[in-house]
Amino acid sequence: MPGLTIGDTIPDLLVDSTHGPIQIHDFIGDGWAVIFSHPADFTPVCTTELGKIALYAEEFDKREVKLLGVSCDDTASHVEWIKDIEAYTPGCNVRYPIVADPDREVIRQLNMVDPDQKDSSGLELPSRALHVIGPDKRIKLSILYPATTGRNMDEVVRVVESLQKTSKLKIATPVNWKPGEKVVISPSVSNEEAKKMFPQGYDTVDLPSNKEYLRFTNI
Amino acid sequence: MPGLTIGDTIPDLLVDSTHGPIQIHDFIGDGWAVIFSHPADFTPVCTTELGKIALYAEEFDKREVKLLGVSCDDTASHVEWIKDIEAYTPGCNVRYPIVADPDREVIRQLNMVDPDQKDSSGLELPSRALHVIGPDKRIKLSILYPATTGRNMDEVVRVVESLQKTSKLKIATPVNWKPGEKVVISPSVSNEEAKKMFPQGYDTVDLPSNKEYLRFTNI
Repeated sequence: MPGLTIGDTIPDLLVDSTHGPIQIHDFIGDGWAVIFSHPADFTPVCTTELGKIALYAEEFDKREVKLLGVSCDDTASHVEWIKDIEAYTPGCNVRYPIVADPDREVIRQLNMVDPDQKDSSGLELPSRALHVIGPDKRIKLSILYPATTGRNMDEVVRVVESLQKTSKLKIATPVNWKPGEKVVISPSVSNEEAKKMFPQGYDTVDLPSNKEYLRFTNI
Repeated sequence: MPGLTIGDTIPDLLVDSTHGPIQIHDFIGDGWAVIFSHPADFTPVCTTELGKIALYAEEFDKREVKLLGVSCDDTASHVEWIKDIEAYTPGCNVRYPIVADPDREVIRQLNMVDPDQKDSSGLELPSRALHVIGPDKRIKLSILYPATTGRNMDEVVRVVESLQKTSKLKIATPVNWKPGEKVVISPSVSNEEAKKMFPQGYDTVDLPSNKEYLRFTNI
């Protein structure tokens, strides 16, 4: 089943949520958003995930990233389930809205359907899909995990930090990069430009090809 | 641009690589595979990524996971570039094949196109897409990152471990789970069944709903 992918504009759906109706593009506004689905309320992995993301809310707040959960249960179920989430993860406070999608229209349009899970009436269930959306309402990055595999919220914070930093400067973040570590200068930047653009200086790695493309700097 | 997603069977393409022609389904065989694309040879983030994944080869070998890189440069370029990769990451040995895809047919069919990058002739460039493929040749999990954001190979090993463990037992792995930590028992397993299935025992978390769905066990 082909689905929405990076570069696509997220559909501007009007959805029902625990915070009332939400028009997705208005909700994102001029900032960033992380939209993430979970298979079902009152299930184990989801309870651990939604608590952890609530615990990390400060990390998203300070980066001006809105959070939006999505699942197919109704809002009354979401509200009851939030009590379990907050009891399991002490200190968390589920302040972000959770979309109710009983007809599965939202998860189908957002490429959040789990190919291997159905409910008792044969309807699709959501996967653990997560899209990071930029201020232009386009999907910048997606992780698509199945129901069996809980996400890693440290990885989500890491990639949001990378996406935001690399949207402002002509840099990229290397493998296994963590916030605070050195970044690389984009290949489109000449050495002459790099000297002006990065007055703090940069280190070029000596390579057998003698090509000067691996340049690290601190930002 | 809609693309291949989790649950889809990976197309059985015949591709050209640094190890000669590869028929993708034969290459995967009865095991698992991680297929990952990178934007271009002789570019900074890719050099750090392909070295790191080579350094982690043992982790993939012991899980019977084949590795397959994909990029649009030709095999002669890949072979020259591997010298740089191995020089930058001491101790790594790039033993996995890298596909050459000058016509972009592979990256289009595998949903590995970066929406924002073009080469000097206007052709698409690959994103940092990564698919984990199961023995049934279906995509179990995908991460789709843009050129600016290097992947996290620890996260890749973590999810492969989760996918393999949860394919054998009726369990799932909670948020931020790492190999060796407790897992949760699938909701489809009754308490009666769980007692037989997990003779080592399990702990049920007390929750406000009084529903007994959050059950942890060691495996």
